[in-house]
Amino acid sequence: MKEIKVGLLGFGTIGTGVVKVIQQNAEVISQRLGTKLTLAAIADRDITTDRGVVLEPGVLTDDADHVLTNPDIDVVIELIGGYEPARTFVLKALENGKHVVTANKALLALYGQELMLAAEKNNVSLLFEAAVGGGIPILSSIRENLCANQFSDVFGILNGTCNYILTRMTENGEDFSDVLADAQELGYAEADPTFDIEGIDTAHKLSILMTMCFGTWVDFDSIYTEGITRITALDIQYARQFGYQIKLLAIGKQEDGVVEARVHPTMIPDTYSLAEVRGVLNAVRLIGDFVGPVTQVGSGAGMDATASAVLGDVMSLSRQMLGESSFLPPALNYLTKNITTLPVRAMEDITSPYYVRVMVEDRPGVLAKIAATLGEYNISISSMIQPERELGGCVPIVLMTHDAVESDVRAALEKIDQLDICREASLFIRIENDLA
Amino acid sequence: MKEIKVGLLGFGTIGTGVVKVIQQNAEVISQRLGTKLTLAAIADRDITTDRGVVLEPGVLTDDADHVLTNPDIDVVIELIGGYEPARTFVLKALENGKHVVTANKALLALYGQELMLAAEKNNVSLLFEAAVGGGIPILSSIRENLCANQFSDVFGILNGTCNYILTRMTENGEDFSDVLADAQELGYAEADPTFDIEGIDTAHKLSILMTMCFGTWVDFDSIYTEGITRITALDIQYARQFGYQIKLLAIGKQEDGVVEARVHPTMIPDTYSLAEVRGVLNAVRLIGDFVGPVTQVGSGAGMDATASAVLGDVMSLSRQMLGESSFLPPALNYLTKNITTLPVRAMEDITSPYYVRVMVEDRPGVLAKIAATLGEYNISISSMIQPERELGGCVPIVLMTHDAVESDVRAALEKIDQLDICREASLFIRIENDLA
Repeated sequence: MKEIKVGLLGFGTIGTGVVKVIQQNAEVISQRLGTKLTLAAIADRDITTDRGVVLEPGVLTDDADHVLTNPDIDVVIELIGGYEPARTFVLKALENGKHVVTANKALLALYGQELMLAAEKNNVSLLFEAAVGGGIPILSSIRENLCANQFSDVFGILNGTCNYILTRMTENGEDFSDVLADAQELGYAEADPTFDIEGIDTAHKLSILMTMCFGTWVDFDSIYTEGITRITALDIQYARQFGYQIKLLAIGKQEDGVVEARVHPTMIPDTYSLAEVRGVLNAVRLIGDFVGPVTQVGSGAGMDATASAVLGDVMSLSRQMLGESSFLPPALNYLTKNITTLPVRAMEDITSPYYVRVMVEDRPGVLAKIAATLGEYNISISSMIQPERELGGCVPIVLMTHDAVESDVRAALEKIDQLDICREASLFIRIENDLA
Repeated sequence: MKEIKVGLLGFGTIGTGVVKVIQQNAEVISQRLGTKLTLAAIADRDITTDRGVVLEPGVLTDDADHVLTNPDIDVVIELIGGYEPARTFVLKALENGKHVVTANKALLALYGQELMLAAEKNNVSLLFEAAVGGGIPILSSIRENLCANQFSDVFGILNGTCNYILTRMTENGEDFSDVLADAQELGYAEADPTFDIEGIDTAHKLSILMTMCFGTWVDFDSIYTEGITRITALDIQYARQFGYQIKLLAIGKQEDGVVEARVHPTMIPDTYSLAEVRGVLNAVRLIGDFVGPVTQVGSGAGMDATASAVLGDVMSLSRQMLGESSFLPPALNYLTKNITTLPVRAMEDITSPYYVRVMVEDRPGVLAKIAATLGEYNISISSMIQPERELGGCVPIVLMTHDAVESDVRAALEKIDQLDICREASLFIRIENDLA
């Protein structure tokens, strides 16, 4: 039986993990595949650093073309990250008739459509399980077994850095900036953490999930993206008093052909499975019309878990090659020709319950004024925490609303912020308490 | 493109669900498959009952051969359940060159090897995602994306009836028999609940998971199977005091080519993801050498969720047929020729921490006697609950041990039961607190 030859672009942490899996689990891989996976070439600019793995002589090169144009190589694994030269290399690999596996969510979120169409045109596949949720097999689950469902919702905790920070803030009452500094020291956050803490990385992943769940291309700029930097230990503490946790959630919804695509700190009840997802773990929760809710939890990052997902894709492609199948697996769940562009609901138009915190002077009549202003905008209060009174001081009024329209909430809070009783700008957090 | 024609054996609850999915989601299925799925024939002994779905005339028949020998039918879905005639029909379908999808875990647990080899001999596939964990896509996850991992552990909450009963006992302090009666009335338990509450159904499913994770055929009788009938509200209450929950767990382990295969009530820490799995939900937690722990939670039974899993398999097979692939998906993750029969560790030889409850006369020196007997058998106590004292009365002594060997625990408790201070037979529950 034909041996499968793999080429690797990028020999960093994940690339090293891929080499480890191929070497360490060679036997079990061939017991499941019926043939051998061979690492034919690795290209990286740095060919001198010792990565702690032993390679056959001649395998490591600093010339990407050695992988991209090598006629022996069946599958190219792209682990360079970022937009360029990753995009150019992936396109070249596809044009040369090679299947491609990537973990590059940024690339897919911005150039996914172009790359998918290039794969199709060249009659090869582009797979990317490792790009969403690390080792969690969520994309192959959607495509391989949940594929008879119409999905209404997809929720994700997709960034380990944010979840680690929020978990520590929740469990130890620590402040955002302290935990971030610590996370950077521990290697859980990058030196420049912008992509993570501002929600951009999560939005990249949401974009991929939405295409696979709802059959829509997602213009990355249409995803509302709000990070966790505004979240304070105080709000986390109030959330807990209401029986809620604050998570950075990717939220995709679809109803009657209109989608919502948003990433923001979200309050979810303590009793929900996603509330239990602590530290650097990732999780995805989907709701299908027949399967109902399905939750998957696992390692969202790291050398080993990510390499597991990459190799899963390589093995899928290998089986397809071994069977000489003329039908390519629909990487995005839908055949690309059936993927449309569904309208995205404007953020002002979404409906949700809200958590609201207003910092006010502590004097009689304050609450009445706030309630009246909310009422003017059709916002009704579902529960409230009565702060400790401190006459003449500044106290938080903390409340949860019933379902309200975002534009109403924004307008009401703008008006409240202008009241003379207000001491600082109010803050709101969206709530998901109907995850089914 | 070729239309895929499906035939159905058994038109009960799940069968009706399958018809609903095919009809209701016809459009999205064809957007993902590129072709239509058609239900060509349904065979059931009862062709008169109204199942609430509308069929084309001539589709429903009481002659199984109408499905089994119909040259138009590509995939046969077996939803009869039980051993016969299901086994005969599945074999006949395979021999007639049809792919088969089944939800029949009992059949697979007892005749899986025979059926798999028959499928292989006839160059067709037999898939069974719905047999384990209902709608949870765990089998396809193992096969399609986690397949580069060696697994050390698989844990499952695989029976909704048991989990429902234990959840209610835990949350409301109710007694086993009361909840069971109620569950029967609510339709969560069968009139004859033996298969569920004695752990047999869970063991059927464990057998399938073990073959896929560890590459071993499992003699069904080698699975140690203990149900939940001995569990009392009292033990659940003590477990909670230790910070644990009691779940009926399927446990598969593999180390150095020796496996453990057991189903029994198990104490797991409150903080574990499986402890959060409430009511009729199912869950599976796997530990792979690269991916680490992965948990999946969802509906383990019911018409809709099970039908979702069945259709997932049908769509996988359809893609294979559309591509005219000559390589059959390795339904058991391993190529069957590479599946061996690993030795199963005898139950007396397993090592685990234990929860022990002894009902004793409340008089001085009792604890010392018990501790001394445990010590004789190399069993050390890790923590203990001091019962309310009731001089001269009967009190429970409740303790947790460090890792101990099962045969030692059994021998020590047999000896303790013979002490004159003992009022009733002692009870022990195995603990898993190292799920990673």
